[in-house]
Amino acid sequence: MLLDATASGVFSIAATPFLPDGALDRASIDSLTDFYLDCGVAGLTILGIMGEAQKLEPEEALAVSRQIIARASVPVIVGVSAPGFTAMRSLACGVMELGAAGVMIAPPPHLRTDEQILTYYAQAVEVIGDDIPFVIQDYPLTLSVQMTPKVLREIVMAHPSCVMLKHEDWPGLEKISTLRAFQKEGTLRPLSILTGNGGLFLDFEMERGADGAMTGYAFPDMLVETVKLMQAGERDKAHDLFDAHLPLIRYEQQQGIGLAARKYVLKKRGAIAYDAQRKPGAQLSNTARAEIDYLLSRVACRDPRASL
Amino acid sequence: MLLDATASGVFSIAATPFLPDGALDRASIDSLTDFYLDCGVAGLTILGIMGEAQKLEPEEALAVSRQIIARASVPVIVGVSAPGFTAMRSLACGVMELGAAGVMIAPPPHLRTDEQILTYYAQAVEVIGDDIPFVIQDYPLTLSVQMTPKVLREIVMAHPSCVMLKHEDWPGLEKISTLRAFQKEGTLRPLSILTGNGGLFLDFEMERGADGAMTGYAFPDMLVETVKLMQAGERDKAHDLFDAHLPLIRYEQQQGIGLAARKYVLKKRGAIAYDAQRKPGAQLSNTARAEIDYLLSRVACRDPRASL
Amino acid sequence: MLLDATASGVFSIAATPFLPDGALDRASIDSLTDFYLDCGVAGLTILGIMGEAQKLEPEEALAVSRQIIARASVPVIVGVSAPGFTAMRSLACGVMELGAAGVMIAPPPHLRTDEQILTYYAQAVEVIGDDIPFVIQDYPLTLSVQMTPKVLREIVMAHPSCVMLKHEDWPGLEKISTLRAFQKEGTLRPLSILTGNGGLFLDFEMERGADGAMTGYAFPDMLVETVKLMQAGERDKAHDLFDAHLPLIRYEQQQGIGLAARKYVLKKRGAIAYDAQRKPGAQLSNTARAEIDYLLSRVACRDPRASL
Amino acid sequence: MLLDATASGVFSIAATPFLPDGALDRASIDSLTDFYLDCGVAGLTILGIMGEAQKLEPEEALAVSRQIIARASVPVIVGVSAPGFTAMRSLACGVMELGAAGVMIAPPPHLRTDEQILTYYAQAVEVIGDDIPFVIQDYPLTLSVQMTPKVLREIVMAHPSCVMLKHEDWPGLEKISTLRAFQKEGTLRPLSILTGNGGLFLDFEMERGADGAMTGYAFPDMLVETVKLMQAGERDKAHDLFDAHLPLIRYEQQQGIGLAARKYVLKKRGAIAYDAQRKPGAQLSNTARAEIDYLLSRVACRDPRASL
Repeated sequence: MLLDATASGVFSIAATPFLPDGALDRASIDSLTDFYLDCGVAGLTILGIMGEAQKLEPEEALAVSRQIIARASVPVIVGVSAPGFTAMRSLACGVMELGAAGVMIAPPPHLRTDEQILTYYAQAVEVIGDDIPFVIQDYPLTLSVQMTPKVLREIVMAHPSCVMLKHEDWPGLEKISTLRAFQKEGTLRPLSILTGNGGLFLDFEMERGADGAMTGYAFPDMLVETVKLMQAGERDKAHDLFDAHLPLIRYEQQQGIGLAARKYVLKKRGAIAYDAQRKPGAQLSNTARAEIDYLLSRVACRDPRASL
Repeated sequence: MLLDATASGVFSIAATPFLPDGALDRASIDSLTDFYLDCGVAGLTILGIMGEAQKLEPEEALAVSRQIIARASVPVIVGVSAPGFTAMRSLACGVMELGAAGVMIAPPPHLRTDEQILTYYAQAVEVIGDDIPFVIQDYPLTLSVQMTPKVLREIVMAHPSCVMLKHEDWPGLEKISTLRAFQKEGTLRPLSILTGNGGLFLDFEMERGADGAMTGYAFPDMLVETVKLMQAGERDKAHDLFDAHLPLIRYEQQQGIGLAARKYVLKKRGAIAYDAQRKPGAQLSNTARAEIDYLLSRVACRDPRASL
Repeated sequence: MLLDATASGVFSIAATPFLPDGALDRASIDSLTDFYLDCGVAGLTILGIMGEAQKLEPEEALAVSRQIIARASVPVIVGVSAPGFTAMRSLACGVMELGAAGVMIAPPPHLRTDEQILTYYAQAVEVIGDDIPFVIQDYPLTLSVQMTPKVLREIVMAHPSCVMLKHEDWPGLEKISTLRAFQKEGTLRPLSILTGNGGLFLDFEMERGADGAMTGYAFPDMLVETVKLMQAGERDKAHDLFDAHLPLIRYEQQQGIGLAARKYVLKKRGAIAYDAQRKPGAQLSNTARAEIDYLLSRVACRDPRASL
Repeated sequence: MLLDATASGVFSIAATPFLPDGALDRASIDSLTDFYLDCGVAGLTILGIMGEAQKLEPEEALAVSRQIIARASVPVIVGVSAPGFTAMRSLACGVMELGAAGVMIAPPPHLRTDEQILTYYAQAVEVIGDDIPFVIQDYPLTLSVQMTPKVLREIVMAHPSCVMLKHEDWPGLEKISTLRAFQKEGTLRPLSILTGNGGLFLDFEMERGADGAMTGYAFPDMLVETVKLMQAGERDKAHDLFDAHLPLIRYEQQQGIGLAARKYVLKKRGAIAYDAQRKPGAQLSNTARAEIDYLLSRVACRDPRASL
């Protein structure tokens, strides 16, 4: 079941559960996978930035992939961004053998010119092979690489195995519109666009032409519902639901401590046993935890799923 | 009426109104000043990043300052960040003669080490003189300079004329807590902390110890009310009001097109005659304008000031 | 006498002489201008990074330009890079009226994508007018903007008033070869290429296709001679002369303290009365001065001009 | 034989030899190791940036380390910089078991504040253990992390296992003087300082207080001789030898293609069988190769080792 350009809906960016001592929490990997599936996600993306991928040994990365792919009944995309192509190839080939649906590749932070970006993706495809479906991660805020719509189009048109864009430019609404306009004028082939940024602009991204979301907000069920409402043309209802969560979405979308906040909520929701991160990781203060509790209590007034 | 460390409430970051041909819109400068005063702001900050200061000639910067300072009955802070100290001194001395309450100084983007930052502020104070009250602008997202609480403390303690911090680090809640804890332990003298980031975290910033906001959101009256509610301990009411605006606050808080969105709303509210920016400036698409209109209509359900 | 694409030889990047108290040293401006002319330079470039342009008031910038342009019998290029286009236009128009041969425009540090770079130069040309000859400064090490040969070609082909490239990419030899190959294949019109980087690669840059140098090394007479020897095909002699100076060239080509080193040598050569920089500026330690003295004594063994 | 603060002389940064197809060239690993030893180096540093470490699989990194450590009769330092601490610990523990003398740790590019830098090294020491001697790599030009002398002192004083600084700040002469002055005043304990930057300032670095060089210039024998001459007080002779090589040193010290140039010369000297890099790697043009040949022929006039 390989990923293709028709993918839509919500792909949760999966956290990686750890025990308090920093070891992988195998039981929680199962429960978290089940949680995502119960939320109605269309797919999972594992070993991304939020998955603390950089803190895993190569064999751990494969072990986590094996466990989740085996358990999940939906397509699993695996982040294979790596400082060198050799490591990228190993991981990409390894997870495809395990049954992954595709891989996600972020540009390394030193890329600047359009030419460097195009060359990088050409080299990556040469290295992993042109038969592995891949996702471009476009996340300038964290990666500091800026890819224009034209550059994205050039990558997509040069590589048939590029089937999806994880869009998290900021601001990014016009970018979606521009890419969809390229398709209308016939210069860009079909491409799945899922949006990130913690879901912060999901309400409008869908109308701009996104196919769904790929993000890690701790209420994937709300994201799933919002996407469905938008697809059904229920604009006001979608915004009502989305706006109820926005204060918490915004709180989770803080660089550095966002992951701590997410794991805290995922634990409260029973998806994982511990909100531990492998070292080094930002910790929540007691005040921050109380703020999240307060936000949850306010969300709960309009969405009972937040009554925890 | 010089700025001091007791300043609190909302200081609006003022837009600079232009005519469609790019010339200063003198009539709108007056109407915008009146608008801010009617909103109940405690002060104004002019010639900041949002004020398109870099697009003004030195004499224009002085002219705008003169007009606003003469009309406003509240303290006016003037942004004097400049690529060189000579220009900074000229502008700082010029606006203080015109009656400004103080100046705001952002660190230039190339600063990296704590030592470079401390040296820069020491040089700035030497250049403008130690009798001009000044505000540190701490805005790493745009300025790419990271100042730790300890570095901020060192600047404040070294320079009695430093009376305020414009706090817009992201994430930044713990920073406020840390600075206030420094004061409790006696290692930091009193300091006004006003928060920025478009107001995106104002609801919690007040509880962390902020004295108010210094930002440009197009509903300064809502910011004023939120600050007052928080100061009065009306937490739920403050969040109710704030949350009603959050979808729009978030929309305005987009790098690049945020200013276009703000001017569009300010024009709708009758504060300025045109939403023109001096070139070069990002333009709103028709879709973006429609999105803002929709957001306004939703805010209006809970805050009639948004019925435009 | 406007600058055009046939320009060649050495254009000295001129220092700006200051008195010990930071005021402009008008007498040394004259003597330094005469010194450069005596060295046989083909032109001068003033108000560049090395000219401490950012530390000058607008009226000082015009005053320095007026004095040098009036005295020099060679074309004078004026750096007009500025944080905003309004200031750029003022200065550009001002110095052209004073008789400048053209202006130099560096890209602002935040530019990343090819599109942003092209847009920036288009806006700059719109602002200053398409009748002012201009030079692109390509200096990624300091400006952090990377322009590929294709982007440079696109700027040149879009703007007939672009007549010269100040080339100081590093490494940059292949870039010169690529641009000259573009011309051979007919996709790039004639363009003067003068090289920077303190002259550190001048020996090979000439053979790659450069027309000369635009840099501030304190022995412009040596640069002039090297360029002439290379143009005459005297490769070994050119390298002999160049290599004798290379230890000092390298020493001057240190970020931050390079200018202090240059002013120190220029003062020793009698070109300026003081080696003062306007604040803030890096100072030479006694050890550094002794190192330069030693290097001069070694250069002097092979080039008597260095006996100071 | 663990590394300690008395280390001095030349530690060659070793290239990693590859076959034309990208596989490790095991035979050349032996011959290159022998070549360095014949040059009289005091130690080797492997798996650094120049060693293409990021292109190796974890097991390849261990294999290369095993082979070189087993063959070399001098201390071997292994670069263990990695995107995550888990990979760093694995590699560090692995190579120490193989007999490495210590490890080298570069700060990751996102570090900005002094506090972040200090925290990073504290975490690294916690992770690898405080019994593995380590070297700080201070290379702002490539790593974009700026460490002041005070921060370096703080790291050294906090961690007894920090025994060496690989100094390649630029400019960096004053930094060496400052660190040595710290020691004189008693605030910094003994520390070996070896300098990098391709050797570009080695002539003066020794007088400033460096203990030697840690760099990859393709004539380590010349570096060894220069260091010995400087240690013997033969200043003029040291400079004579150094200056003869400076044109080539400068040519090798070009970002990106420097490694290609070095491998080309190492191959000419018989140290490795192929000058191949594992993909992706910058290639030398024919013109560049001819330029290097010419430079070698000129060096050879004064140093017969360059007659190749």
